[in-house]
Amino acid sequence: MTVGIVGLGLIGGSIGLALREPGRTIIGHDPSPDAEKTATARFCVDQTCPLEEVAKADFVFVAAPPDHVVETLERIMRHKGEETVVTDCTSVKSDVMEWAERTKEPMFVAGHPMAGHEKTGAAYASAWMFRNARWILSPIKPTSKPAVKRLEAVIKAMGAIPVRVDASAHDRQVAILSHVPHALAAALVLMGEELERTDVSGGSWRDLTRVGGVDPGLWTQILRGNRRELTRALADAERHLAELRKALEEDDAEAVRAFLERARAAKRKQEV
Amino acid sequence: MTVGIVGLGLIGGSIGLALREPGRTIIGHDPSPDAEKTATARFCVDQTCPLEEVAKADFVFVAAPPDHVVETLERIMRHKGEETVVTDCTSVKSDVMEWAERTKEPMFVAGHPMAGHEKTGAAYASAWMFRNARWILSPIKPTSKPAVKRLEAVIKAMGAIPVRVDASAHDRQVAILSHVPHALAAALVLMGEELERTDVSGGSWRDLTRVGGVDPGLWTQILRGNRRELTRALADAERHLAELRKALEEDDAEAVRAFLERARAAKRKQEV
Repeated sequence: MTVGIVGLGLIGGSIGLALREPGRTIIGHDPSPDAEKTATARFCVDQTCPLEEVAKADFVFVAAPPDHVVETLERIMRHKGEETVVTDCTSVKSDVMEWAERTKEPMFVAGHPMAGHEKTGAAYASAWMFRNARWILSPIKPTSKPAVKRLEAVIKAMGAIPVRVDASAHDRQVAILSHVPHALAAALVLMGEELERTDVSGGSWRDLTRVGGVDPGLWTQILRGNRRELTRALADAERHLAELRKALEEDDAEAVRAFLERARAAKRKQEV
Repeated sequence: MTVGIVGLGLIGGSIGLALREPGRTIIGHDPSPDAEKTATARFCVDQTCPLEEVAKADFVFVAAPPDHVVETLERIMRHKGEETVVTDCTSVKSDVMEWAERTKEPMFVAGHPMAGHEKTGAAYASAWMFRNARWILSPIKPTSKPAVKRLEAVIKAMGAIPVRVDASAHDRQVAILSHVPHALAAALVLMGEELERTDVSGGSWRDLTRVGGVDPGLWTQILRGNRRELTRALADAERHLAELRKALEEDDAEAVRAFLERARAAKRKQEV
């Protein structure tokens, strides 16, 4: 089996590492020679080659920055093999889904691994990146069912758990589950600017700010790509904070407690 | 050496575990018989006894809920030994400092370990809780310098790093470093309520929501105790989020990127 990866950053590199084993050939492509060099040096791919060749693999993962995904998919579609299953890893689905609905490509399965971290590049790629991570698949009507099945098997081979999420629900979901968390972390880090020292902190600061300094280029694309859902979700976040703030301003103990009780109940339900 | 602990919850219990070794006797007291039973069963203390006796130890740590700290300190002061060094673990310092300024107790050293987690009670206490954690001390003019020195040695014995923070700066600092993070986590958990599922999430959701369901009773006391600084800090958080939201609403790529660049720069400085 040959697996092709287009875009050899943190995610693309990790897919390569997670799938490398005898019997699988991993080929990759990245427009940046530096990225190809790093991915090769770290054995994320067996070899790099032009996109046209990568497109002929049994599976092609597109792990490009959001703004380049649709054009990359178009190029791959022109050169892909007949049985090639193509998928993407884009954290915002609206542009990709518009393209998928328009082209009705049966061998394309929209995907989004819920994994990653605050570092970028194949230098930080890890074979364990997807272990126990949810990997969202959003097939639509024209999507070939056997293609989805085949892709699910490869995803499981990486240790990930494939889950189906309706594309229309996806962007709202990741706005709350990923994009708002990144925005909150950035806001918190910015609040730390006025302090003389932030090392006098505990676990909550460490956890809440971990993703507070993510790559601005990549994340501008991600946040803008999901701006319709994200602006709504950010307004919700502001509303929740304002509710707590007002309760504290009025020194309304019952209201503060009610806020925390609701949060605790929600948290418990989410842990089930 | 005898160490006394008043309040045998997560923090008090962990102090006991962290200090237990031959040559040190750990005695403790908690108004709740259940808490005393758990702390004893988990060997957090060698024995429990009335507060009046605990007060005679060489060191007394008060790890009571914020609303009960001042009354506990007053009771301890009436019964303490001449050389007993008394300290607290309260995450909000205004009430305690007011008491300290008023009583000018030389053997009292205001303290606040920057450690803890989302679980409560001695059942979750850990000998490693304070390993490499910062332990804030805020001595004031009347505080005995030798008392601070002696206390620092005990804090180091727990593996923690004592740091001096001026009491007036403390509450602003912990508003940003601890209380706002907890508020953001709670807000995020509440936003998750509208989703059918939150298990389709990655590391950022896991980290950002870890402390989203903390004990409402305890945290109502903590947040109210720091409401002056916290309401200001929450307004700042809302302002940062609104700035990002507006940039996204206007689809102003430069402004989104500038926000993320500022956050990245701040994060890098904080990591030094």
